[in-house]
Amino acid sequence: MDNNNDGNRSLLLGLLDPSHNCNGRPALKRRYRRCRSAPVVDYVPLEGSTDQSIQHSQFLFGNLHPSFTKVCAYLSIYLGVGVTCVYIIRYQIEGKKTKAIVDALYFCIVTMTTVGYGDLAPNSVLAKLLACAFVFSGMALVGVILSKGADYLVEKQESLLVRALSMRQKLGPGDIMKEIEMKKVRYKCFTVLAFLLVLVTIGTIFLVLVEKKDVVDAFYCVCCTITTLGYGDQSFSTEGGRVFAVFWILTSTICMAQFFLYVAELNTERRQRALVKWVLTRRVTNVDLEVADMDNDGVVDATEFILYKLREMGKITQEDISLVLKEFEELDVDQSGTLSLSDITLAQSTPRPR
Amino acid sequence: MDNNNDGNRSLLLGLLDPSHNCNGRPALKRRYRRCRSAPVVDYVPLEGSTDQSIQHSQFLFGNLHPSFTKVCAYLSIYLGVGVTCVYIIRYQIEGKKTKAIVDALYFCIVTMTTVGYGDLAPNSVLAKLLACAFVFSGMALVGVILSKGADYLVEKQESLLVRALSMRQKLGPGDIMKEIEMKKVRYKCFTVLAFLLVLVTIGTIFLVLVEKKDVVDAFYCVCCTITTLGYGDQSFSTEGGRVFAVFWILTSTICMAQFFLYVAELNTERRQRALVKWVLTRRVTNVDLEVADMDNDGVVDATEFILYKLREMGKITQEDISLVLKEFEELDVDQSGTLSLSDITLAQSTPRPR
Repeated sequence: MDNNNDGNRSLLLGLLDPSHNCNGRPALKRRYRRCRSAPVVDYVPLEGSTDQSIQHSQFLFGNLHPSFTKVCAYLSIYLGVGVTCVYIIRYQIEGKKTKAIVDALYFCIVTMTTVGYGDLAPNSVLAKLLACAFVFSGMALVGVILSKGADYLVEKQESLLVRALSMRQKLGPGDIMKEIEMKKVRYKCFTVLAFLLVLVTIGTIFLVLVEKKDVVDAFYCVCCTITTLGYGDQSFSTEGGRVFAVFWILTSTICMAQFFLYVAELNTERRQRALVKWVLTRRVTNVDLEVADMDNDGVVDATEFILYKLREMGKITQEDISLVLKEFEELDVDQSGTLSLSDITLAQSTPRPR
Repeated sequence: MDNNNDGNRSLLLGLLDPSHNCNGRPALKRRYRRCRSAPVVDYVPLEGSTDQSIQHSQFLFGNLHPSFTKVCAYLSIYLGVGVTCVYIIRYQIEGKKTKAIVDALYFCIVTMTTVGYGDLAPNSVLAKLLACAFVFSGMALVGVILSKGADYLVEKQESLLVRALSMRQKLGPGDIMKEIEMKKVRYKCFTVLAFLLVLVTIGTIFLVLVEKKDVVDAFYCVCCTITTLGYGDQSFSTEGGRVFAVFWILTSTICMAQFFLYVAELNTERRQRALVKWVLTRRVTNVDLEVADMDNDGVVDATEFILYKLREMGKITQEDISLVLKEFEELDVDQSGTLSLSDITLAQSTPRPR
């Protein structure tokens, strides 16, 4: 990871030294200053702009994290197509049967979550190939649910949970936001774990009461299901049981997977914190200062220091810095080394070369 | 996410305005400069320091990504304990039996990967509870393998692949590194997909030749296995088949899971790129300049601009900036607003208040 550090360093110094870029002449720093009382060109009112940026981010946010409805639509399409296909070829599937439509839905859910009890198994070439197609597309769909829908739901529940917990400690809304932000993943873990325990209890009780299993078998069946193990020696065999199973299996397997994802996230976060702590507590040497001094003026100011340390923490890369720097140079029309309103007005009135 | 943006902004301006921190008096900027030819205090030779930082990062790297050996050790312990337990209670497990020790190993692998054919299933209370314990610990172990070992192996294979591909195009080592860095996840995806196809082919051929299945059944069994579906109507039933299965199931299920992980990573990366592009191409307004101007000097220099844009891209947070800024202020003993060698020498000779 750090093997090409030296290469990076000289690259960095070369890239970030303004004298390299401005045709050999040293950058004239702080010559152009924006007069705060001067009439402002291209003025965008503060409030309007804030609204605009929020709208922009909502627009982006909406694009990046498609709503829960979208996930539900995918799921409906998958189950619609799946149930229809399985219903049509129902005589090519063998095993303990109940009502045909319930069995088809149950078979689709057991397949897409990769539980695969085998109490209903395809016994023709067509049915087998269809099952293969179902399981791959089902896994992809479960992935989509995990990455989009589940996290969104947990995040909503999480803030409710933390708000409820903080009611007693009389924290202000700001403190709650901070508390959530600091221990976000940990709270998510707890939330999902609580859900999981509730689902395990409900599943076990249901299997004992409706499917008439003894307690150990019921618990064993629950464990086999939420882990998607599905040996198939214990499964849902009544019509009512299978209707319940459709909802319960989907929820509990996704809950379990999400739990593992959060544990992994928690680990990553812990490692990241260790790295941050190391970067912040280690001795700063003259070499650090030299590398951090991007504009080569012999001293390191606050922003240079922040950029250097964040790069060391691995939060940003040289590529990130270069990308933004390129935009900065395009905007800095008068090549003063600083951006002022006159710069951006000039830069944006002429179309950019792209 | 952006609701408390305004709060953040004023917080940021307050935190980063040096005049707020220096007891009301404006910071004297650039008064202390390090003379490049002056005798250097606390000098650390460049080479030595680079070595040291590499050693540090290797130490950290070693800690953060425990070696592949560690993963192998965990796996051995898990399988050692698992096989011993299953061997001892082998008469409480029913199904098609071959050699006892092979069956025990096969049962453990089928359970830990959550394939769960059910061709060997526990039929006593003890065996059932043991299976539950195995599947949970097995899933956790597979998680560890995925997060530590598998990615490490793929990364190694990936660089070999890209190197081999670039031999023809006559790229220098620097270009190869850049090529890998730019399309890292995509290459990982391809590498794992190639592995997966090889494993599917090997599995299908083996099932046809050794287990004497027809081609469709063999392919169906392979699909049921790599997705961990495991209906159990088709499984490995001969001793030789089960020995092969032990290695093949572990490799192929992990390969499949890793493939899905990379696809998810690819999606995240694509979204991140879209956000970066949006941040870089949108119009810079006077409001942006005001917020980006951390030291309130009326102009935005390159590093301020970079920090502002990176924060907008979500790569860094206000918390990150504040953390480093706190260290900067501790180091900036003369409160000049810039760090020079004399600052860090002074700051580090006195123990820090913690």
